[in-house]
Amino acid sequence: MDYQKVSSLAKRRGFFQPASEPYGGLAGFFDYGPVGVKFREKILRLWKRHYVLGLGCLELDGALVGPEALFKASGHLSEFDDPLVECEECNKNYRADQLVEGGDGMSRKEMGEALKSMCCPSCEGSLSELSAFNLMFATEVGAGRGVKGYLRPETAQSIFQCFPWLYRLNRNKMPLAVSQIGRSYRNEISPRQGLLRMREFTQMEVEHFFLSENEPSIPSHLGGVSLVLVPNEGESLETNIENAVKNDIVGSSLVGTHLAAAQAFLLSVGIPKESLRWRQHRKDEMAHYSQDCWDGEIKTSIGWVEVVGVAHRGDYDLQSHGKSSGVEFRVPVPGTSKTVEKWVLNVGALGKEFKSKAGDIQKIVTDMELVPGMEISLDGGVISLGEEFFKKEITQESEMVYPCVVEPSFGLDRLFYSILETAWKEDGERQWLSLPKMVSPYDVLVAPLMTKDGLAERAKEICNMLLENGIDAFYDESGSIGRRYARADEVGIFFSMTVDHQTLEDGTVTLRERDSKNQSRVPIDDALSKLGR
Amino acid sequence: MDYQKVSSLAKRRGFFQPASEPYGGLAGFFDYGPVGVKFREKILRLWKRHYVLGLGCLELDGALVGPEALFKASGHLSEFDDPLVECEECNKNYRADQLVEGGDGMSRKEMGEALKSMCCPSCEGSLSELSAFNLMFATEVGAGRGVKGYLRPETAQSIFQCFPWLYRLNRNKMPLAVSQIGRSYRNEISPRQGLLRMREFTQMEVEHFFLSENEPSIPSHLGGVSLVLVPNEGESLETNIENAVKNDIVGSSLVGTHLAAAQAFLLSVGIPKESLRWRQHRKDEMAHYSQDCWDGEIKTSIGWVEVVGVAHRGDYDLQSHGKSSGVEFRVPVPGTSKTVEKWVLNVGALGKEFKSKAGDIQKIVTDMELVPGMEISLDGGVISLGEEFFKKEITQESEMVYPCVVEPSFGLDRLFYSILETAWKEDGERQWLSLPKMVSPYDVLVAPLMTKDGLAERAKEICNMLLENGIDAFYDESGSIGRRYARADEVGIFFSMTVDHQTLEDGTVTLRERDSKNQSRVPIDDALSKLGR
Repeated sequence: MDYQKVSSLAKRRGFFQPASEPYGGLAGFFDYGPVGVKFREKILRLWKRHYVLGLGCLELDGALVGPEALFKASGHLSEFDDPLVECEECNKNYRADQLVEGGDGMSRKEMGEALKSMCCPSCEGSLSELSAFNLMFATEVGAGRGVKGYLRPETAQSIFQCFPWLYRLNRNKMPLAVSQIGRSYRNEISPRQGLLRMREFTQMEVEHFFLSENEPSIPSHLGGVSLVLVPNEGESLETNIENAVKNDIVGSSLVGTHLAAAQAFLLSVGIPKESLRWRQHRKDEMAHYSQDCWDGEIKTSIGWVEVVGVAHRGDYDLQSHGKSSGVEFRVPVPGTSKTVEKWVLNVGALGKEFKSKAGDIQKIVTDMELVPGMEISLDGGVISLGEEFFKKEITQESEMVYPCVVEPSFGLDRLFYSILETAWKEDGERQWLSLPKMVSPYDVLVAPLMTKDGLAERAKEICNMLLENGIDAFYDESGSIGRRYARADEVGIFFSMTVDHQTLEDGTVTLRERDSKNQSRVPIDDALSKLGR
Repeated sequence: MDYQKVSSLAKRRGFFQPASEPYGGLAGFFDYGPVGVKFREKILRLWKRHYVLGLGCLELDGALVGPEALFKASGHLSEFDDPLVECEECNKNYRADQLVEGGDGMSRKEMGEALKSMCCPSCEGSLSELSAFNLMFATEVGAGRGVKGYLRPETAQSIFQCFPWLYRLNRNKMPLAVSQIGRSYRNEISPRQGLLRMREFTQMEVEHFFLSENEPSIPSHLGGVSLVLVPNEGESLETNIENAVKNDIVGSSLVGTHLAAAQAFLLSVGIPKESLRWRQHRKDEMAHYSQDCWDGEIKTSIGWVEVVGVAHRGDYDLQSHGKSSGVEFRVPVPGTSKTVEKWVLNVGALGKEFKSKAGDIQKIVTDMELVPGMEISLDGGVISLGEEFFKKEITQESEMVYPCVVEPSFGLDRLFYSILETAWKEDGERQWLSLPKMVSPYDVLVAPLMTKDGLAERAKEICNMLLENGIDAFYDESGSIGRRYARADEVGIFFSMTVDHQTLEDGTVTLRERDSKNQSRVPIDDALSKLGR
């Protein structure tokens, strides 16, 4: 199935369509329809099972808009841009790295040189100088001289700025895994190919914080997971993740853990193993925050599509936010606690001696190192504070460090697209979405053989009973039973249940399995347990 | 419990905190923490059960950003504003209707008059002229001369612009109910009181489309629901919804249906009936699209808080979008189908006679009424098309109308706040959130009596088993069992399960119910079925 076919299926059957369609659409934005919402829900549920339950993540749902200071600290205001050229005749905008052949691997300077001999591919006009276009959507918050706000370019920043809160809610324990599902925004210069390069997209992310001294090792159930790895140097290979880490192909055990976990999740939503590879970023390709990054790529009709990135972000983000905000983002290193004696002011003695000036003295020495005999300026003179104005305080202090973080970050929309494309099957006239049961938009079609003789009423009753039991049932009575099967197949409904005259007599129904088309007659209760998850 | 206490609980226990907190926050934006995400999820699940399942809604998840044309059509660019005054000394901004006493019920002109004698309440500087401040957040989409985009001011517009698609996906059947859960944005001049007046908020909306000729009547299971109504004229009263519609207090049966349905939902999330009233908007208070509107208000420590509006929007929105976009937003009225004979071109005859000019003629007559003998200009001359170039076509045509819509629109954040405030209980030292089982953030606390003797390991096993069975279990081993109960009470966890030495012997656990504090010892399997939903 190719890109055009997916789009046409999506529109026809209610998966998605371009947003604001009656107004000609808004490039890079999409609306998810009734079947699309169900399908997204199923993918999200499975993702939560793998990550929120499997890893024991704390969940966050952060604001989509942040202030300038946040994105200055994160580096997005200065680093998050694409090279832009504009045609001086027709004013069309181009991403320079896509316009120049091989631009992907070029420096900005090389790109600028290459552009000198080129003209606009659409009108042959001359091209502007290369500029850097920041990819964040900006807005004004508040009336009058409002403050600048930005739509977040990645969900990750919501988690990073919340780290002090989340760490405290985790009772100051490390490691700490935080998950978030939510929208992010990138003002792409030329969004293309529907769900594969969107300006508004949904991310499913985990930020797994740890101390580099105590990096979690690979859990035993993941060590044996086998992956196709494409390192940025050397040959591609297939190996299990334990070996890949041992042989230093993957440089961090937590990155290894998340590569294996991500592969397990992708297989569970139906991505075929042979269509999946893990490609390491080149040094010049990595984001400004990244130390190492592996993309999970799926083979589709338009090439390898990145659906997840597993990035080792080091302590870049927490350090940036800690230093920019002045708030403590560091945590103590276990085992480094030591007893520290230090001088503090003896406020009582100070008050007795200096009376109303005592408060002024306290203010003056704030941020100064306290030592008996220290001299301070007071009321134009200089006084010396003797030992009688101090006392010794004994505290436990630890070495403080910024935690590191490994981040598996999934693009829900791209995954959505890739599943549709890889699950599509054709066999002569017949075509269907061969989705795993867990991600089928609906669990079962409920179809009366005909609408008369009370069959429709009975089928509706059964459908409601299934819904009340938490089973996603879809009722359909229009057209021949064959057409209804065909429609159900096209959106990947796993089972079809037919209600016929025999149902009225003995309470059995026909259950048809989508892929095999095998039909069996079973009592309704048996069907119910077969449909349960 | 008052506003300060809710905020403090929320921060301490991970419900929510101001967004970008380390940077001093961004007024009107909030981050939901681990317990908050769970709590929201439970409210949403129950809402979906009431609306998506109960009403059989089609679901939509639309883009959050729309183009200028969309919001010009919806009226938000011209009508969606608040009256603004600025202090000319300190540049502080005020909403004029909040600054002027009784400004709420004044016209803009009256407000302007009243402001003439006032000065800035914070610096006594003189105030600017009254202006209209549009509440939409604007942004630029695309590079260079990008196009203007706006964050949607209500989820509703995503549904309205999708109507032609959704109607087709519903196989052209009416009525049609569409639900959507998503974020909306209003650039409030002065956001106050946390979750009660936010700039970014989550709506849970249904747009229930119908033909005014065929307005759905009140379903029998809702007719008897009793509500406290505060009409915009006359006395408040308590009556069931069937009577309210019959006596014309509520003017539409579908509005009545949704008032009753919304009340049923609000009671199910734990809002006490005596804290709930339905207040009809005054004529001067209604939004530009509204024909009638009732607010569901909850009594809190800071007054009556609107958590849902049930609005009759007439055909305002579909008509606006239909006319602005040129796309068909109307639907046929059943029973108005009639046979229509009309002339169409006989393309064959035309081709034979006019050869290569036939195409030009077809183009010329587009949008003209076709009648044998009609005259057209061709190649500088005028020709007459005789009957031989026409044939009669017989079609079925129906009267086309714009459907009307009734909209129940819930503010999730305000509801979230109101539940916390109304569910809070204090009894001496003890304090707890008395949430219904269905909306408790977690179903059960799992607590080993002590961590030694293998009790912690057994408790973790049990916790995992519960999680795998779809039960939201929360494991806690820190501190005395009393402290753990107290912490669980504070976030409203419904049951606490204690694992002790007897558990190791006979597989029973202690189950404590939050509100009554009653404890009983039960086999684990019994506990499991008690915890299930």
